[in-house]
Amino acid sequence: MLAANLLVKKREGEQLSDDEIRFLIDGFCDGSVTDYQMSAFAMAVCLKGMSPGETECLTRAMLESGGRMPRTCSGDTPRVDKHSTGGLGDKVSVILAPLLAACGVHVPMISGRGLGLTGGTLDKLESIPGFRTDLNESECDGALRDVGAFIVSASDQIAPADRRLYALRDVTGTVESISLITASILSKKLAANLDALVMDVKVGSAAFMPSLNQASALAESICRVGTACGLPTSVLISDMDQPLGSAVGNAIEINESLAILRGECRDQPTVERARELTMLLCSELLVATKASSDYKQARDRLEDALQGGHALERLMAMIAQQHGRLDGPLPLAKKHVIEATHDGWVRRIDSRTIGLTVVEMGGGRRRVGDPIDHSVGVAMQVLVGDRVVRGQPLMEVYCSSPGQQDEVNRLSATIELGEQPAEPIPLILNAGS
Amino acid sequence: MLAANLLVKKREGEQLSDDEIRFLIDGFCDGSVTDYQMSAFAMAVCLKGMSPGETECLTRAMLESGGRMPRTCSGDTPRVDKHSTGGLGDKVSVILAPLLAACGVHVPMISGRGLGLTGGTLDKLESIPGFRTDLNESECDGALRDVGAFIVSASDQIAPADRRLYALRDVTGTVESISLITASILSKKLAANLDALVMDVKVGSAAFMPSLNQASALAESICRVGTACGLPTSVLISDMDQPLGSAVGNAIEINESLAILRGECRDQPTVERARELTMLLCSELLVATKASSDYKQARDRLEDALQGGHALERLMAMIAQQHGRLDGPLPLAKKHVIEATHDGWVRRIDSRTIGLTVVEMGGGRRRVGDPIDHSVGVAMQVLVGDRVVRGQPLMEVYCSSPGQQDEVNRLSATIELGEQPAEPIPLILNAGS
Repeated sequence: MLAANLLVKKREGEQLSDDEIRFLIDGFCDGSVTDYQMSAFAMAVCLKGMSPGETECLTRAMLESGGRMPRTCSGDTPRVDKHSTGGLGDKVSVILAPLLAACGVHVPMISGRGLGLTGGTLDKLESIPGFRTDLNESECDGALRDVGAFIVSASDQIAPADRRLYALRDVTGTVESISLITASILSKKLAANLDALVMDVKVGSAAFMPSLNQASALAESICRVGTACGLPTSVLISDMDQPLGSAVGNAIEINESLAILRGECRDQPTVERARELTMLLCSELLVATKASSDYKQARDRLEDALQGGHALERLMAMIAQQHGRLDGPLPLAKKHVIEATHDGWVRRIDSRTIGLTVVEMGGGRRRVGDPIDHSVGVAMQVLVGDRVVRGQPLMEVYCSSPGQQDEVNRLSATIELGEQPAEPIPLILNAGS
Repeated sequence: MLAANLLVKKREGEQLSDDEIRFLIDGFCDGSVTDYQMSAFAMAVCLKGMSPGETECLTRAMLESGGRMPRTCSGDTPRVDKHSTGGLGDKVSVILAPLLAACGVHVPMISGRGLGLTGGTLDKLESIPGFRTDLNESECDGALRDVGAFIVSASDQIAPADRRLYALRDVTGTVESISLITASILSKKLAANLDALVMDVKVGSAAFMPSLNQASALAESICRVGTACGLPTSVLISDMDQPLGSAVGNAIEINESLAILRGECRDQPTVERARELTMLLCSELLVATKASSDYKQARDRLEDALQGGHALERLMAMIAQQHGRLDGPLPLAKKHVIEATHDGWVRRIDSRTIGLTVVEMGGGRRRVGDPIDHSVGVAMQVLVGDRVVRGQPLMEVYCSSPGQQDEVNRLSATIELGEQPAEPIPLILNAGS
């Protein structure tokens, strides 16, 4: 078998056999298939696609390039995880992991860092002084046993083929492929030895997938391949035309997560949206693992865990287990309030510009390794479709940079008010399973 | 400018600007654009194509990655060259270069080695004891001045970007792109500072381009881009469904070239086909450079050069200049004659199998650097459409390997005889300009 011949085959739109895909991935791992061959392969896959069978084989080959977490400490306890394609203000993981742990399931969560528009869960958690994301295997075991959840960075042992291929894709314009995204996500999730996975595929102007068609195709691919690989996978497609929840930033999103777990802010529709999406994703996992018999029962159980303070307690325990020190809301940068200059309806929120401005304020990374200012961010006070009156707060900006007025001005322009009523945007655009 | 963004642009089928193409090629040369980025780019170009303007820019950028041959020694003498896309039995260069030199034009020819099915002109010439293909610049100058022609290997100074890109394309399944082939051929030919170029695009079962449509597209691209870059370029599309001429091999093709230059074998239709194609290609160049005023005059001049022995004398001078020692036909391996087992018409000649068998007999390379047995080869005695009778020689096989009977048997099966007359295949399938 020659790699070049397999590349020609894919270039011509033909299907590769299981053996051929394994030859490429195994060769990539042992060095007999080069970086330049894999990047040409990735480009051919972007343009010619892969069948579900090919994608499944690619996923398994990447999974088997590394180890699997043992599930010894879980025993019969269901192990679950959630993965999101990335969105502005998406703090769901920080709430979901302790909430599910409080419902008696294990959440061994491997998360990522932010790059570009949207923040990463690990960056948000590192707003908490002392918080460590690099637990070793025995610390992870201990966290599951004692807390029921952890959120850590991926170790080198998890799907190393995916790690290397992703780094290549990032610099060769080959990120946007349904098959490659599916294999990348699932190879890592399969390594965690889960009983169920729920995907939150974001769609909208600030999402990786701008159109519902593309998001649906990705959702279908992940459900199909995940399930075929023995991991029951369901998908929600959720809105990313406006930030999720109120907070966009790092410390500010941890503060919002704490508020939700404390049962606060129930009167704020922005925050309520983040709470609701978390509940829906948690429900999928409780039902999928039969921890709850139906969605109604799952919902009741989740509400109990929140209202009884058990979920908050699990978060505090998880933070302590991961060496974090938290005794109240995290400090934020100086606050500026953006108010409505006239009456009207919120017609559109330019989420991309909000995300890019938070990055420019220091809240995100332009390049891998850039430092992050955890104290900056914004708090959205309105949703698309809201009626507002002159002088009403639209957004709080937490900013400490010298050019802050520029940034406040840019952010002011992101909320478009109109004289005609505008439709609210549904939170869930399409539920898959 | 970021290479990854340009790759996304090409992946999406958009046109790249001149600056963007130069950024990629210059970056490839200085190391800021990596091999894996260039191979992903090559794959995107294979699948999404390039406009004539993009191809022209790519050609110029690759040309300018290296130096140009000075044309000082040519003065007002036209400088010309021929390039073929590669075919079985194609010894045209060996005849064309001295023949044109005998007609008073300069032929500074840079040629290649064989890999795979078809042999390379340099390998054929190296059948001649002592023949050197690595002349330096001043030796090349001397050869043009004293002989009017040379045939050498490319130096490192000629289009280094093409050399590196070609090596990548060879192992990443990205050879088959009209734009990349055009830029690769023309960047090297432009470096030779020519006044005219003629392309021999082969089409047929043993050619790089199996279909006339693809061959025509390549022909059009090369004419268009060559002319746009200031090099008047014309193209003949010629048959490669059967070998060109009688001889397929190395020494045996040199012997056939000598026979044609000596005016021998005029009664052999196979050999006559190689002579005729050479005359047509030479005529194009004499007319393009106005060395002859029309095709009739060009033809007369070429016939005079052949029949007067001037072309043969030029070949002998060129061989001597390049340190070769030739005093008669080159020795060949042991001869076996394949005869017709029944009467019939030649319906088809399986040229691919002939080519592959000659490689297996040691006459070609499977890998770069493999040694070559110059003495093996075949001599075709028939053309498609010929009427043959039982016992008539169809092919001579020159073979010295122990498994020779296997190879003779395989070669016997390549000439398909039928009971119904078959149409001869035209030599020229379409003339471009």
